[in-house]
Amino acid sequence: MHQRRYLIPEINKDMRRQVADYLNTLTKPEGSLGRLEELAIELAGIKNDAFPTVTPPGILVFAADHGITTEGVSAYPQAVTEQMVLNFLHGGAAINVFSEQIGALLEIIDIGVAKDIIHPNLRQQKVRYGTANFLHEGAMSRQEAEEAIEIGYKEALRMIGQGAKSLILGEMGIGNTTTSSAIVAVISGKPVRSLIGHGTGISTEQLLVKQRVIEEALNNRKPIASDPIDMLARVGGLEIAGMAGAMLAAAENRVPILVDGFICTTAALIAKMISESVVDYMIVTHKSVEPGHETAIYLLGKRPIVDLGLRLGEGTGAAITFPIIESATLMLSKMATFSSAGVSDKKEMNEA
Amino acid sequence: MHQRRYLIPEINKDMRRQVADYLNTLTKPEGSLGRLEELAIELAGIKNDAFPTVTPPGILVFAADHGITTEGVSAYPQAVTEQMVLNFLHGGAAINVFSEQIGALLEIIDIGVAKDIIHPNLRQQKVRYGTANFLHEGAMSRQEAEEAIEIGYKEALRMIGQGAKSLILGEMGIGNTTTSSAIVAVISGKPVRSLIGHGTGISTEQLLVKQRVIEEALNNRKPIASDPIDMLARVGGLEIAGMAGAMLAAAENRVPILVDGFICTTAALIAKMISESVVDYMIVTHKSVEPGHETAIYLLGKRPIVDLGLRLGEGTGAAITFPIIESATLMLSKMATFSSAGVSDKKEMNEA
Repeated sequence: MHQRRYLIPEINKDMRRQVADYLNTLTKPEGSLGRLEELAIELAGIKNDAFPTVTPPGILVFAADHGITTEGVSAYPQAVTEQMVLNFLHGGAAINVFSEQIGALLEIIDIGVAKDIIHPNLRQQKVRYGTANFLHEGAMSRQEAEEAIEIGYKEALRMIGQGAKSLILGEMGIGNTTTSSAIVAVISGKPVRSLIGHGTGISTEQLLVKQRVIEEALNNRKPIASDPIDMLARVGGLEIAGMAGAMLAAAENRVPILVDGFICTTAALIAKMISESVVDYMIVTHKSVEPGHETAIYLLGKRPIVDLGLRLGEGTGAAITFPIIESATLMLSKMATFSSAGVSDKKEMNEA
Repeated sequence: MHQRRYLIPEINKDMRRQVADYLNTLTKPEGSLGRLEELAIELAGIKNDAFPTVTPPGILVFAADHGITTEGVSAYPQAVTEQMVLNFLHGGAAINVFSEQIGALLEIIDIGVAKDIIHPNLRQQKVRYGTANFLHEGAMSRQEAEEAIEIGYKEALRMIGQGAKSLILGEMGIGNTTTSSAIVAVISGKPVRSLIGHGTGISTEQLLVKQRVIEEALNNRKPIASDPIDMLARVGGLEIAGMAGAMLAAAENRVPILVDGFICTTAALIAKMISESVVDYMIVTHKSVEPGHETAIYLLGKRPIVDLGLRLGEGTGAAITFPIIESATLMLSKMATFSSAGVSDKKEMNEA
């Protein structure tokens, strides 16, 4: 049902075991660095490398509009997508600040903003001028969904070619929690009201509107839960398709995928439906306050690293969490062993 | 009961309010950076600065021995304290790796290791050669406890003088979860068995020994819960006293105290008993797996930023969490506002 076949290598389980053993030779009580030790083992298996590195990370921010915003599902007007893209390009958004902090490579991709944006640093990859309003018609054609996935795939290859050792996927798209909630409702079979939240800050009244709009739209569109391209075509969105494609490229190239919040995790679910083993390359960085995120993380079979009460998107949660992942790799590559440091380990005492 | 009087300034509540308002002008939905926004407000109040900075952080690692190790309460022999101090000085320990990652100033202080250690980079501040075995006698004299607090105080002043903008307190001392469990048992009134854990990795059998040793020792020593100097004198330890003193110096100078794991939080409780308002300057960075830590954090009235299943000490948890705190300050100082970036905020839409 999807054109490209993805060739995702298997995780190296021997490398995982080798690193797990090596961790116990480092000058610390066994297992005492907890989640960092798990991350080191995970990254070694992903990268097929006893001393994996995640620096520099690459951040791809996909921007697109959603026709569904006409229904009053968001606290902000659609124009904010375009305005925020300009803010990204001028370096003033949260993702710019955190990207600079972690020394990331950053690209902003117009994959479907409703207006034309002219800027030398913007990746011009517009598939269409925003999706259609999926309450009344399909968000896009199957072909457009495929095209958006392919764009994401190629943008990730380009970023990896520029030297990115790990990949953060971010997004900007007013209305995209509505689209993501619709997708996660279809995949999980859970009631819409259990998945939706206040997004960028809508009132309780608007939340009820959002619920009714999604319920009615799903009833009108009837997306096929087993067909990721059908879901994207019926409810959107272009940036979600792009992120999914980028994840597939990362997995093919053994590049760890640092999954951000609700929208990004929805894209991860789409990618998983396209090629199951992409999940082995994913690390969910944080749990957001958006109610559907917990369900999406559960469907992915993952455990987030931190919970900082975030709900911004743009890839910010993954960028904020990145240094912890980097700490795991530095622990592995830079700590002394008991024998090299001349420190007694437990066995020596038990023998004494 | 304690000689020095600490002059801890009040947190600036107006500055907190000012920063809380300013955060809502930045190009993100209100409150969408969750815990980071709370941290920014906290740091502004602590530093009395609308754009507080925490970089570079200073890390003070206090090392000391515990006579109680004779009772078989630890998985490692006492000699490991000295060996690990040498590992710190040679740059091979976990705290060295994370200290380098975050660009910290790092000092190692011998405040009571059982052996003499000669190294040009070691701060020689030994109060005594380890504490006495508090199962059978007081760990140290009241005067020695006071002296250790004063050493910590002066080491922190020195570190702040060298330019540290935030302070991480670390420790090394085989046996110090036993001492900390004893102190937290006295302060909380909780049963010892609910507070102790496997520390550096003791067996369940050794855990029962640890419990009995602490219970019997508390019965023998009868530390006075309302007198922090008495508690330190009766059960120790020297590094805990040093950390408490360092925290008091940080608070006097409006330097944020980034609290690490169980031992460090125990020191924070001692500091709080010496001067209540020191707590306003503390940020608890993580929750460790050591069972008593949760109780200690609760007694401090704090909420940890992350839970990464750590139980290493040395200040590692605080160092690993540091970049998140730094992210909070960078968000505040570097993000564009809605008006400077020309982005529509919610009000504009409501008016439209």
